[in-house]
Amino acid sequence: MAQLVRFGVSMDAELLAAFDEVIADRGYANRSEAIRDIVRDTIVRADWQGDDKPTVAALCVVYDHHAPDLSRRLASIQHEHTDEIVAALHVHLDAHDCLETIVLRGAPSLLRRLSDQIISTKGVKHGQLLATGAGPRLG
Amino acid sequence: MAQLVRFGVSMDAELLAAFDEVIADRGYANRSEAIRDIVRDTIVRADWQGDDKPTVAALCVVYDHHAPDLSRRLASIQHEHTDEIVAALHVHLDAHDCLETIVLRGAPSLLRRLSDQIISTKGVKHGQLLATGAGPRLG
Amino acid sequence: MAQLVRFGVSMDAELLAAFDEVIADRGYANRSEAIRDIVRDTIVRADWQGDDKPTVAALCVVYDHHAPDLSRRLASIQHEHTDEIVAALHVHLDAHDCLETIVLRGAPSLLRRLSDQIISTKGVKHGQLLATGAGPRLG
Amino acid sequence: MAQLVRFGVSMDAELLAAFDEVIADRGYANRSEAIRDIVRDTIVRADWQGDDKPTVAALCVVYDHHAPDLSRRLASIQHEHTDEIVAALHVHLDAHDCLETIVLRGAPSLLRRLSDQIISTKGVKHGQLLATGAGPRLG
Repeated sequence: MAQLVRFGVSMDAELLAAFDEVIADRGYANRSEAIRDIVRDTIVRADWQGDDKPTVAALCVVYDHHAPDLSRRLASIQHEHTDEIVAALHVHLDAHDCLETIVLRGAPSLLRRLSDQIISTKGVKHGQLLATGAGPRLG
Repeated sequence: MAQLVRFGVSMDAELLAAFDEVIADRGYANRSEAIRDIVRDTIVRADWQGDDKPTVAALCVVYDHHAPDLSRRLASIQHEHTDEIVAALHVHLDAHDCLETIVLRGAPSLLRRLSDQIISTKGVKHGQLLATGAGPRLG
Repeated sequence: MAQLVRFGVSMDAELLAAFDEVIADRGYANRSEAIRDIVRDTIVRADWQGDDKPTVAALCVVYDHHAPDLSRRLASIQHEHTDEIVAALHVHLDAHDCLETIVLRGAPSLLRRLSDQIISTKGVKHGQLLATGAGPRLG
Repeated sequence: MAQLVRFGVSMDAELLAAFDEVIADRGYANRSEAIRDIVRDTIVRADWQGDDKPTVAALCVVYDHHAPDLSRRLASIQHEHTDEIVAALHVHLDAHDCLETIVLRGAPSLLRRLSDQIISTKGVKHGQLLATGAGPRLG
């Protein structure tokens, strides 16, 4: 079971007021929740800067499904990396464009290379890799 | 049918050599494909900076499915925004953590607000909104 | 005089341990200092997303000082915006390239437009605008 | 002397029209100049992702000059890294806050560590490292 700890933070009153305003605006119910979120985001960024911890990412690509042979090539890249590729969601955006979000796990450098390989495939119009994380280190 | 045009670009030879090295490294088969990709990325960023063009995004959130009432609240937010929310992929990462990627369409400012609302929900550990785009403007 | 307040944050023990590791790595002497820094960064990002608060930025451009007429054009843009441009540092990087960092103040949208204008000037090789902030809101 | 080369790019007409609109908005006089800029930006990002090429960066920090001993500590860090630190610009923003932009050269990982060390110093309110580049590889 997760163990909760409590610690104190000292802060200038005006800084705290400005933060409270920003987080109220975003819909946070309380300050601890918001602090935890920015703490997690700091860890996610540090994990992605380093390369020693396996982590989680989502790759989002937009492509024209009419592009010859593209679906087959994308499927084939994904099947060659079943260790890293967890799942994919395919959305038909309009008569031409598809959006695919692909959930990946592994070392950041490996996920970046795999993402580069998919994004550079002819017919993929736009792609971006979004770093996230999971597990007990994120509380 | 899409109409292809061809135009010339003049560039310093050393700059072009450095670019060719970067794109070979990423797996691009040819330079035109790589140029089209960075052109599209420039447009996607500009569209997100402005707010006058409806566009496409993927929100990726990680959360603990044991968090009381969280799944119900996330589902309820999504059902209140069926105009913007296109589809969602749910992945069970481990005994605790779920990853959900949610595909959104609409004005950038609206998608940011909706994304803030979901990310700030208690129990959501990490969330990020990834801007992309679709349609004939992206070729 | 600045008034210090103190508040409590509750957090999962493993999340806190992961955060402590990241901030020790970066050289933070204590946790409060690190929390204040990520709180300020959250405010800076929110201020730049909005556009109602005047803020501070640094524009960093690299250019070839041999580019005909470039120094004159950059100086002239800066003189037309003396309300926004506070100061500039000019560094001679090598026989060709200069780096200039320009400190700006004003509304985010205005600073972005001014930055676009400078970066798009022929002969400017690379430019980026870095958002920061100042004043009592940042503690 | 720099040698100019010219190459052709083929692109969907609607994509090109969207790009032309974005770059006109930013003030570019012609398309080649804009393409060169996004090509350079791609190289700068790749160089910062890798770590084998020495490059150039600007670190921008905001701090309260009343913070006890801070100026001395910042000066001392900078003097210990004269190989990496090229120059600095100091701006007095108001009665309390100073902004300093510090120009750095060296391997990306080294510049990141140095930047972390400066940003984590007690009294530094906000800091960010901005990657850029120079030399013949950027044309």
